Amino acid sequence: MEIAAIRADDFRQLWPTFKAIVEAQETYAYDPDIGYEDAYTLWCQLPQFTFVAKENGEVLGSYFLKPNAAGPGAHVCNCGYMVAPEARGRGVAKAMCLHSQDRAIEAGYLAMQFNAVVSTNEAAIKLWKSLGFEIIGTVANGYRHKRLGLVDTYIMYKALSHQAREKATSSP
Amino acid sequence: MEIAAIRADDFRQLWPTFKAIVEAQETYAYDPDIGYEDAYTLWCQLPQFTFVAKENGEVLGSYFLKPNAAGPGAHVCNCGYMVAPEARGRGVAKAMCLHSQDRAIEAGYLAMQFNAVVSTNEAAIKLWKSLGFEIIGTVANGYRHKRLGLVDTYIMYKALSHQAREKATSSP
Repeated sequence: MEIAAIRADDFRQLWPTFKAIVEAQETYAYDPDIGYEDAYTLWCQLPQFTFVAKENGEVLGSYFLKPNAAGPGAHVCNCGYMVAPEARGRGVAKAMCLHSQDRAIEAGYLAMQFNAVVSTNEAAIKLWKSLGFEIIGTVANGYRHKRLGLVDTYIMYKALSHQAREKATSSP
Repeated sequence: MEIAAIRADDFRQLWPTFKAIVEAQETYAYDPDIGYEDAYTLWCQLPQFTFVAKENGEVLGSYFLKPNAAGPGAHVCNCGYMVAPEARGRGVAKAMCLHSQDRAIEAGYLAMQFNAVVSTNEAAIKLWKSLGFEIIGTVANGYRHKRLGLVDTYIMYKALSHQAREKATSSP
């Protein structure tokens, strides 16, 4: 699996996944009727970085990284990750999250925050916890799940250790 | 005090307050070097509503109201409030927050969320608590305070009671 900066034709490959995820209304707080151009802007142009995970030319997933706020809040970043349905269970989200933490540290961010992890998205919550994120808050009824109705969302957070990163990269 | 939809010349009067608040870097996670046009876009054009509080033609403060997320998260709103330095201590923030809760209920929102209340902004935290908001999460070192360095931010939340609003408006 390779993770590289996304290109327009990668996003074209990602689009069916993007569309299926937002239409499902189970994980993302995006307009479920968003069109291709707006989705491209949101995912690939507004963020600071957008990466794609590929294997043999096939798009497995993608993520963006951006400051979670401006000015005095710009040292905390935010990411969003999507994995193609056919690529699930292959560690793509984990690989992208680890990659994003490295990129965030390189870019000088001190922490990473997820603003609305849907509480019913148990696989994601388990994964983020295993990668060092903790739930720092619960928004009651923060998400209107397509099948389940109003469900809570979690705010998840991880302080990024620049020291740990330096140690990891300098070890043999 | 009157609270009405903001107009371009109201924002012109608000601008010194806006500029002073973002330059102080004590409360808002906005770019401290933001220019007039970008500030106007951010405060008056991107949100769903922006209101101004005035007395005898003088701008006392302003607030915006917008969805805190899109699609399945669009039933939770977010607001930001600014009060002119010379109008502090006159209940302007309280009046605007009560006004915003009414407007939010009218617009169909189920809750209001503040994403980054700076933990050292004690007056604001006390006021929001008195108006029914609670701290639902703490972001460690979420804000780079100009004088104090990295300080925590709070996520504050209030469920909006449509029933309470209906009762209030139907009582004699």
